[in-house]
Parts: sequence; C-alpha cells; structure tokens
Amino acid sequence: MREITPHDLENLAVGAAILGTGGGGDPFIGMVMAQQAIEEEGPVTLMDSEELDDEALVLPTAMMGAPTVMVEKVPEGMEAVRALRAEERRLGRKADATSPIECGGVNSQIPFVAAARTRLPVVDGDGMGRAFPELQMETFHVYGVPGTPAVVADERGAVVTIETEDNFQLEWIARGVTIRMGGHAMLVDYPMSGAEFKRTAVRGTISMGIRIGEAVAGARKTGVRPVEAVCAATRDTIYGRGVVLFEGKVVDVERRTREGFAVGRALLQGLGAYEGSQLEVRFQNENLVAIRDGEPLASVPDLISLLDSERATAVTTERLRYGQRVTAIGIPTPEIMRSEEALQVWGPAAFGYEDLDFVPLERRFADYYRRHGVPVEKQEYLDLSPKP
Amino acid sequence: MREITPHDLENLAVGAAILGTGGGGDPFIGMVMAQQAIEEEGPVTLMDSEELDDEALVLPTAMMGAPTVMVEKVPEGMEAVRALRAEERRLGRKADATSPIECGGVNSQIPFVAAARTRLPVVDGDGMGRAFPELQMETFHVYGVPGTPAVVADERGAVVTIETEDNFQLEWIARGVTIRMGGHAMLVDYPMSGAEFKRTAVRGTISMGIRIGEAVAGARKTGVRPVEAVCAATRDTIYGRGVVLFEGKVVDVERRTREGFAVGRALLQGLGAYEGSQLEVRFQNENLVAIRDGEPLASVPDLISLLDSERATAVTTERLRYGQRVTAIGIPTPEIMRSEEALQVWGPAAFGYEDLDFVPLERRFADYYRRHGVPVEKQEYLDLSPKP
Repeated sequence: MREITPHDLENLAVGAAILGTGGGGDPFIGMVMAQQAIEEEGPVTLMDSEELDDEALVLPTAMMGAPTVMVEKVPEGMEAVRALRAEERRLGRKADATSPIECGGVNSQIPFVAAARTRLPVVDGDGMGRAFPELQMETFHVYGVPGTPAVVADERGAVVTIETEDNFQLEWIARGVTIRMGGHAMLVDYPMSGAEFKRTAVRGTISMGIRIGEAVAGARKTGVRPVEAVCAATRDTIYGRGVVLFEGKVVDVERRTREGFAVGRALLQGLGAYEGSQLEVRFQNENLVAIRDGEPLASVPDLISLLDSERATAVTTERLRYGQRVTAIGIPTPEIMRSEEALQVWGPAAFGYEDLDFVPLERRFADYYRRHGVPVEKQEYLDLSPKP
Repeated sequence: MREITPHDLENLAVGAAILGTGGGGDPFIGMVMAQQAIEEEGPVTLMDSEELDDEALVLPTAMMGAPTVMVEKVPEGMEAVRALRAEERRLGRKADATSPIECGGVNSQIPFVAAARTRLPVVDGDGMGRAFPELQMETFHVYGVPGTPAVVADERGAVVTIETEDNFQLEWIARGVTIRMGGHAMLVDYPMSGAEFKRTAVRGTISMGIRIGEAVAGARKTGVRPVEAVCAATRDTIYGRGVVLFEGKVVDVERRTREGFAVGRALLQGLGAYEGSQLEVRFQNENLVAIRDGEPLASVPDLISLLDSERATAVTTERLRYGQRVTAIGIPTPEIMRSEEALQVWGPAAFGYEDLDFVPLERRFADYYRRHGVPVEKQEYLDLSPKP
C-alpha cells in the first residue's frame, strides 16, 4: 500500500512505454490526465493484490481505441467515472478498487484517473502483463473470469452496457461501439472479486513499471548504461531479468494497416558487437517476434521492446524511423502468461505464426549463444527464468 | 381491446407490407414468428391506446437490421424477450404493454412475438405510422420521449444496453451493434408511460393494417377492384383516404447501395387512363417521392406504395422488376406526422430533397387535376384530408 505521486506517474509512463512492447498507446497522454485528476482530487493509493479482501469488488478501467487529447484542455476522464458508476448500478454494488487490464502503454495510467475521481484504490496488477490489442487477451479471460457486464462510455455522456458469455464477442461489440463513439472511449470490463483478481491477475506490474522508469532516470544520474538499468529492473519481479537482444540501426520499416492493426516489420543492421548481423522485428501494433539472421530469438508473449540506444526510452512501432539507433531488449514473461491455456490466446499461432512454437526467451537465448560458441561470461544469460 | 388471431396476423402482414411503402422488411417473416409464438403461448390482446393507464409502462419492441429466417426452424424470438427483460431490469419495473415502433413491414409483427412470449398486451399504435429507416424517425422522438435506455439483443444471448440523451446517437450506436451482431437483432427503445404513448404515438395503425389486409382479401371475394378496396380502407382512420396516383408498367429500375441503404428510382410507363404519361418513384429503402411527367404528386411523409395492379399486394423496392404491372397509390399521412417538428425529421429535405417543400398529398393531387382540367367526377379527390 503506497501513495502514488505525480512523480511516480512520470516514472510509470517511461516504464509502461517499455512494457507496451511497441504498442499500447502513448502513456504520456494518460499520465497528464492522471496527474491532473490527482491534483484536483487528491492522492491515489496503490495496493498490493495480497491486501485485497477476497470479497472485494474490483472494477478494472481502461481506455479503448486510439487515445487523443485536446491541445488546449486535458480531458477530465469523467467517461471512466460514468462507466464505473454504470457498472456499479448494473451489479447493484459499489466498487472497492479499480485496476488496470493492461500495464503497457496508456492503460497503465487510466485507472489512476478513475481512482482519483472516485476515491478508490488501484490494485497493483493487470490482465496482460504487457500490451495486447484485444479484450479477450487477458489472464482474466484465460482463467475463467467473465468479461461482462462491461461498460463503454464516451465523453458526450453515452454509456453502453454489454452482456455476453463470449469474451471474443465482448471484444467485437465493444470495438464496434468504440468506433461509433468516435474511435476512443472508456471501458470497464471483467468485474471480479478480490479472490478472482488474486487468482488470475499478473501481479505487481504497476510497481514494476514505476521501477523501470526509476531505473532509466537513476541511470542518467549514476552513469550506469540506461539500457542495462532497464534490463536489471525486472530482476526482483515475477518476470525474468531483461536481456539485450541486439543493437543496431533501423535500415527498413514496413508498415500497413490491416483490419485496424498496424502490421509490419522493422529491420535493424547490427552495430558494435552485433556488426554484420541483422535483426528483424515483426509487429502487429505490438512487437511479436525478433529474428536474428533467420533464427527466432524471442516471441510473444515474451516482451520485445525497442529502446533508444542512448536514453533507453521506448521507441514505439508508430515512431520507428530509418536511421534510428535502437537496442532491442527481451523480458521473459511470467509463468501465468505461459500456460497452455494462455498460449492458445496469445501464443505466436494466435497472431498468425502457425509454424512458430512458443519457446521461452531464456531458452531460445541460451541455445543461440551455445550454438554460436559465445564465451562463459555470457553465462549470465543462462539464468533469466521468471520466478514462480 | 380484442384478441388477435393467426388469421388477423395474415391480414396484418398484407396491410403492413403496403404501409411499408416499399421498405420496412418483409412482414411475412415476422408473421410466421408471431403465429408460432401465439400457437405455443396462447392468444395476444391488442388494446386501444385510450385503454392505457397514464402510469402504465410501455416498452416498444422491434427488429433492427435485415431480417433473416432459418429455412428449417422459425426463430423463437427469445431475443426480444431478453431485450424486454433487460430493459425492465434497468428501469427497475415490469412492463405493462409492448407496442410497435413501426407499423409498416416486419416491425408490425415483432411486438406480437414479444407479447405472446411475455403475456403482455400490444398497444394499437406506433412511432412512424409507416416505415422509416432510422430510430430517430419516430413521433416518440419528435415529441420529446427519450429513446433510451434502449436494449439490443441477439440470438446468441448477447444483450447491449444503450444510454444517451441524443436519439441520433442511439440510432448510430444501435446500428453499429446490430451490424456486429451479424446484421439483425431485436430492440427495445423509447420506454415510456401510457400518458406519453397517448400523447406521441400514431394511433390505431395496427388495426388499420389488419383492415387493409381484410380489404384485399374481401375484394377478391366480392369482385371490388382490390386496389380500390385498399384505397378505401383508410377512410375511417386518422389517415386520409388512399388514392390511385398512377397505373403502369415498370420500364426502368435503378438501385444502388449507399451507406447501407437501397437508393434509386423506378420508372413507370402509363397504361389505360395513364397512357402516354410517366411516373418516377424515388426511394431510399422506402418510396420517398412520386413525380408524374416532371411534376411531384406526392412526397414523404405521405405514403407512396406500389401495388400489384391485379392483386393489390405490395411490391417492395427489393422486388421491383422490369415489366411488372403496378399501381402507385398515395395515402395522406395523419396530422401528427406533418407538424413542423415532424417534417424536420422526415420531410423531403431530411432525405436530401432540399428543394422540395412538403405539400400534403391531397393538395398536390387536387392542384394537379385542376391544372390538367380533369372533369368533376374526380372531385372525390378533393376531399382526402386526414381527420384530426
């Protein structure tokens, strides 16, 4: 249990952009909204999921669609409050806490907007442990929490409540409603008990996001290489330690829009120790697969992020440009994201990579170095596994 | 107050197809559903709106989108029941009656499905007095009844509740949800009190639809010309008497799909008394304007229907074919459909005819004959006005 400061939200924005793995929407937009909400309404508490009462009602809040912010005035986020109130009314019960559904990108911040405006705490955990494009891609879905009643609300006051037993249909209908609301809206879905949250959420992801941001800021002060500081920041979490996959220069970006997704690939030409080698990163909003000289090094659901090589800030899919110097890092995803049920929802095959089995990053990585005869000091890479 | 028989529903289907003015969806599909529901659940009562208690809760029911029916099994219409139950739950109150929102086309029948399955009466009146393509095109909207909370439900069990103060946004979102539900769904909208229904509805339209169907069937037996029997059938209602606008052969049909609507025109070459003359009928799902040799004879919201010249059954926009012999009739719409507020929503300009003022059919018609020196026996046409 801790009080979240506007400064924490800045660090969270830096960390959540990295956890967004190329997508997830710009967390800085959410940060400005959350900071303003806290300034106006007072501080927000971040609570550990362990502190949640089993009987508590958790109503996750999120933005859906493409975030946009007025230049002259930050939106107050009252849509999120209206969505939350409509959900409470539907359930006949007050919420005890809100939470993110997605710790990567803009949705790391939205629960703080809703929490400040409703005086609720935010639970430290989410349903994706990263960013994903669709509402059924949540641990909540994978482990049996009904996605509905869900509520979508727009800034004009419209509120739409969706009920279905099929979480894929929830995504399909909520997406359609969001489009008709002008392309972005606020959402409450997967209403659940404290016990269900503890059983199904990816735990500790918001404090991890803040810690990653702190690592970037701290490295600037202490002279540690920022990229290395990011990799070390997940060490004491349920994630594995981050590793550098590649350093290079962007030499090609292909990107097209297919069914509302930004689909394509970036090609990096190696620099320094990676000279003469190429890394291809394929994405669909988020980075999905990293392939070094034809050999897959990492794949979804493990996290693949491209960082500015100097500052270690995230370079999103949208902002990839020819000539950028970037470092690709990988972060082994927690075990709760890697079960057989989970991989059916977001393994490589779920994104169209039918021929690519999911192999944990730490194993792919160790195998790669072993095959290429990398010397012993690299053995640090052989102990990257996520902790139970 | 009367009990509706399966035979009444057959007559209603014939009449509602004519009141559909070329669109409104096929009432025979709804009839089969309603007949089956009555067979399984028992009879349904049609009540005059005057019998409604001021405090009663009326929940109108309708189909949205394109009706489809399985060949092997008639849908039970349980979506309509789920929509109605969800609306009751949202309002915290049981419904006392259902009603149509649209007396033309398939939506004349759907309330009987919902009524049979919930043991509610159907109120004799609707919100369009004909068929229109959108949810804000209802007298309920024109005279200030909020369209929401509205509920859209599909056959798989999904239920979506829409709340907005803007009835145009209701249409926009409900249409989007219906598309995502596969193109058709059941709807409850404009929940209202008995007093509001009596103030805003077009009264007596279901019994009028039945009477039109009876007139067609009766004419076959008595030898009256069926088209004339249809024209006479609205005489004792709040509508004006129907009139023959033209008789001819379809010589051209243009039809294209624009934003989900069937937009186009049909051209009739005159036969008999109309030899040497042409009638152009422009439509957008429903027939909007009838133009004889360049002079407008009738326009929306007055009803323009094309009937099979022999049998007087409706020929819908969808079924117009080269060479058909059809009779165009016009029915003056009631005064509640012709107020200034009403014409803003569905006058010719609302459908893109910016230069065409609405002039009541009975006036256009009398003027036309006067200018063309038609003899005195045609003076019957000079007394076609709707009754107050």
